[in-house]
Amino acid sequence: MKVVYLDNNATTQVAPEVLEAILPYFHDFYGNPSSMHAFGGQIGAHIRTAREQVASLLGAHPDEIIFTSCGTESDNAAIRSALYADPEKRHIVTSRVEHPAVRALCAQLSGQGYRITELAVDKDGRLDMEQYEQSLTPDTVLASLMWANNETGVIFPVEKAAAIAREKGILFHTDAVQAAGKIPIDMGKNTIDMLSISGHKLHAPKGIAALYVRKGTKFSPVMVGGHQERGRRGGTENTPSIIGLGKACELARQNLSQENTQVKKLRDRLETALLNAIPKSRINGDTEHRLPNTTNISFEFVEGEGILLMLDLYGICASSGSACTSGSLQPSHVLRAMGVPFTMAHGSIRFSLSIYNTDEDVDMVIEKLPPIIERLRSMSPYWTGDK
Amino acid sequence: MKVVYLDNNATTQVAPEVLEAILPYFHDFYGNPSSMHAFGGQIGAHIRTAREQVASLLGAHPDEIIFTSCGTESDNAAIRSALYADPEKRHIVTSRVEHPAVRALCAQLSGQGYRITELAVDKDGRLDMEQYEQSLTPDTVLASLMWANNETGVIFPVEKAAAIAREKGILFHTDAVQAAGKIPIDMGKNTIDMLSISGHKLHAPKGIAALYVRKGTKFSPVMVGGHQERGRRGGTENTPSIIGLGKACELARQNLSQENTQVKKLRDRLETALLNAIPKSRINGDTEHRLPNTTNISFEFVEGEGILLMLDLYGICASSGSACTSGSLQPSHVLRAMGVPFTMAHGSIRFSLSIYNTDEDVDMVIEKLPPIIERLRSMSPYWTGDK
Repeated sequence: MKVVYLDNNATTQVAPEVLEAILPYFHDFYGNPSSMHAFGGQIGAHIRTAREQVASLLGAHPDEIIFTSCGTESDNAAIRSALYADPEKRHIVTSRVEHPAVRALCAQLSGQGYRITELAVDKDGRLDMEQYEQSLTPDTVLASLMWANNETGVIFPVEKAAAIAREKGILFHTDAVQAAGKIPIDMGKNTIDMLSISGHKLHAPKGIAALYVRKGTKFSPVMVGGHQERGRRGGTENTPSIIGLGKACELARQNLSQENTQVKKLRDRLETALLNAIPKSRINGDTEHRLPNTTNISFEFVEGEGILLMLDLYGICASSGSACTSGSLQPSHVLRAMGVPFTMAHGSIRFSLSIYNTDEDVDMVIEKLPPIIERLRSMSPYWTGDK
Repeated sequence: MKVVYLDNNATTQVAPEVLEAILPYFHDFYGNPSSMHAFGGQIGAHIRTAREQVASLLGAHPDEIIFTSCGTESDNAAIRSALYADPEKRHIVTSRVEHPAVRALCAQLSGQGYRITELAVDKDGRLDMEQYEQSLTPDTVLASLMWANNETGVIFPVEKAAAIAREKGILFHTDAVQAAGKIPIDMGKNTIDMLSISGHKLHAPKGIAALYVRKGTKFSPVMVGGHQERGRRGGTENTPSIIGLGKACELARQNLSQENTQVKKLRDRLETALLNAIPKSRINGDTEHRLPNTTNISFEFVEGEGILLMLDLYGICASSGSACTSGSLQPSHVLRAMGVPFTMAHGSIRFSLSIYNTDEDVDMVIEKLPPIIERLRSMSPYWTGDK
């Protein structure tokens, strides 16, 4: 069965060009870049190129890029480094809709004497910037707000938030794992101190990611070991994946406009058709400030899990909530934070597209989903028709 | 030029069978194992198989295996988890010859109020077990001793050391990154609480590793995020590399006897021939308790760096010190701890073999190295002949 993959915020396929770029480095050019022989040493040049490619996607300097193993590591490293740099301050500002990599760590820190402010969002998933500004105190060591939400695609005004933090001398970190490669990022034009991206969300392999650390920002490594990454992250360099991340970032930069035209057009067509065909359905999240590839739609009086199972029968891959919290019977913490009514939150589906999706993929969902919802509703004791 | 790769303690080639096993998971079966669709969900079974394969190499239960991104992460996670579990205790016992992943972290911790005992080793790199036992105090939270040394291959009696720690109620961790796949490890027959291994040292890709945590051992994650690895390590599973690590562990188990016969025979032949051909040369480290693949040889009055550069001209890859500390002009901390005289320590070369090495590889070194040493010595103001 052909797979219709509309779950690109969970993970993406490795681009063919990326796979081709990394293949020589497993078995042929496998040396350790830290070695004192040419066979290992030659790898260093390729890692430098990759670092430039990543920096280029972000409008950053290559020295500002630290390779890590996943978005979670980047987020954890940013937060822990900030705390380490300024151990006297004990307050962190974040939001209720962050990824578990930030939220779960903050929850752990709150048990260790840190005070955590989790900013609320409105019904469209938007931050109240006034409340944000008021939350920053002389005791605040870090503000960490995601650039774009993984479940709804809602974009936070992180550059504005970073400017406010900078004025007060507070470090600002953003989890840009979902934003990178989907919307323009230019670190030369903002004051964000640290930024996380992850390879497998932009067609690089799993197991590779990066943390941007602005020049001049004090950084203390969390992964302590050898001298790799100029002492900022121990561990033998993951050569093939680093090279793959570089290539993927180069491609993402080239494909950025396509992402915002072609992918957006597909997403919009899917969204409009589903809203028109299915009564009592609605979009979750601010549709004006949103990633071009993501739509999160609620269908009242049905279970997201049931929808996914029936879509799966047709090879259609989507998600309810995020993959990182799936298996939980709770509705998504993001939708709860937005106050989406219980009967709506449970029946929410996220479709997330990529440049590899086609009109046929979207047609398939437009054809299959409405009868699925109808059938599931006909089985629901709460459904009383579309009045 | 053909590469004669004798630097397998720095990193190894990915085995052809491993590369074949991982390839489908980049572009074809790229789903997120945490996803609610079959395309992602099917990956879970392969990760389970990999976990069983890793456990099998170690004589462990699959639930005791946590996948991490590198040996450094495994070491860091073990140590930090131990400290987190028992925050009252402030003393750590380790040795002077540990890998930077342990040593550098302990150095950092010593600046944070921890007392670190770095046990000395004798001239053959052996621990004094009596001194070890005496170093364990009621305030000791963890003993961390490597199973086999990366530079000399010397094997510590970690099972005995773990038994002593267990008697005193002290957690025991071992960095077995160099031991795994080279000598038998059976966690069913010892009381080691935590054990680190790394994929790229045993023909799996870089960027994947594992931490064994014995059932019943309290473990606090360092990488805090999603529910992956049963809440013990956040971050989307690195599917291809996990599958590759599993396959590599399966192969390592099958090749263990070959490692201890064929590889050992090659190593011994290389060693004997070099010692016979080159005056004022000697083996560093206990030759009785040593990895079968490693030899560390000192050549008096020459610089290791010069030797490596000249070997490199023939495509021969070896190392002086470890790749993780290369670039430093200091002689290896391991050899210094063993009291190897300065004139010897500077001229030390590690050859580390694998099952992919051949008689021709060894012949090449036996042919090329003696004249290199002779030439370098003829240029040295200190060399006065082999008397």
